[in-house]
Amino acid sequence: MIEGLLITPLSIIDTPGGSVFHAMKNIDLGFVGFGEAYFSEIEQNSVKAWKRHHEMTLNLIVPIGKIKFVLFDNRETKKGQFQEILLSRETYCRLTVPPMIWMGFQGLTRGNSIVLNIANLPHNPGEIDRKNINEIEFDWSI
Amino acid sequence: MIEGLLITPLSIIDTPGGSVFHAMKNIDLGFVGFGEAYFSEIEQNSVKAWKRHHEMTLNLIVPIGKIKFVLFDNRETKKGQFQEILLSRETYCRLTVPPMIWMGFQGLTRGNSIVLNIANLPHNPGEIDRKNINEIEFDWSI
Repeated sequence: MIEGLLITPLSIIDTPGGSVFHAMKNIDLGFVGFGEAYFSEIEQNSVKAWKRHHEMTLNLIVPIGKIKFVLFDNRETKKGQFQEILLSRETYCRLTVPPMIWMGFQGLTRGNSIVLNIANLPHNPGEIDRKNINEIEFDWSI
Repeated sequence: MIEGLLITPLSIIDTPGGSVFHAMKNIDLGFVGFGEAYFSEIEQNSVKAWKRHHEMTLNLIVPIGKIKFVLFDNRETKKGQFQEILLSRETYCRLTVPPMIWMGFQGLTRGNSIVLNIANLPHNPGEIDRKNINEIEFDWSI
C-alpha cells in the first residue's frame, strides 16, 4: 500500500424510497478540513491522467458507476510504486489520497461514472502538476 | 421566497472524458461549516417527507436525475408558506435550507435520482423532527 493512502469502507443505509450513502464526516480519518466538494464524471474507458497536488488531500467517493484509480508514488525513488483501486457501489469505500501522489482514473461501466471529491482546499491551479498520459508508463487497456 | 433559502447557480465545466460539476466551496454563500456529506437516493415518484432540522443547514446538489423539493415554513404562522424547487443537471443549482424549515422531496425521473447534502453537522437524530407525509397537507400527485 502506498504510504498515506486510506481506504475506508462506507455504509449504505436502506430506507424506503431510496438508500442513503455515507460519504464523509468531519471526525473521520482522512478529513483534514473542507475547502471544496465537486463531482467529476468519467465516460466508459476514458482516462483522465495524470495530476498531482502539492497541498490538496483528496477524499474520493463513487456513488454511480465504477472507476479505476491508479496512484503512482515517486516521492522516494524515481522508479516509483503503482497502486490500482476500484471504487463502486459494490465496493463502497472512500479513498483518501495525500498530497504528492500522481493520480489517473478511468471509467469502467457503460454510461458515465461519477466521483465526488471532498477536498481540503478550493481548486487552485498553482498547486497542481500535470503530465500527459504517456509520461507515466501504465497499461490502461481493458 | 421562504426567508433564508438560497438558490445558487453552479458551474458545469466540460472537459474531455467527462464534465466537472461544482458543488460547494468553503467561501460560498450558504456554507456554515462542514459536519457531514452524504447522498440520498430517491426512486421515481417516491416521496420522503417530512423532516425538520433544529440545527442543521442543508446544502443540496442533484448531480443525477431530477428532484422536487418542497419546503414548508411555519416559523411565523401556523398556516405556513410552501415553496417548490426543482433541481437537476438542467437547472444545476445548490439549494441551501436553513434550520426549522420542513422539507420533503420526490424523485421525478425514470430510475433513481441522487441528492448530495453538504451539512454543517454530522447526523444527529436529536436535532431532527419528523412528521408523516399526511401531517402536512400537500398534493404530491404528478
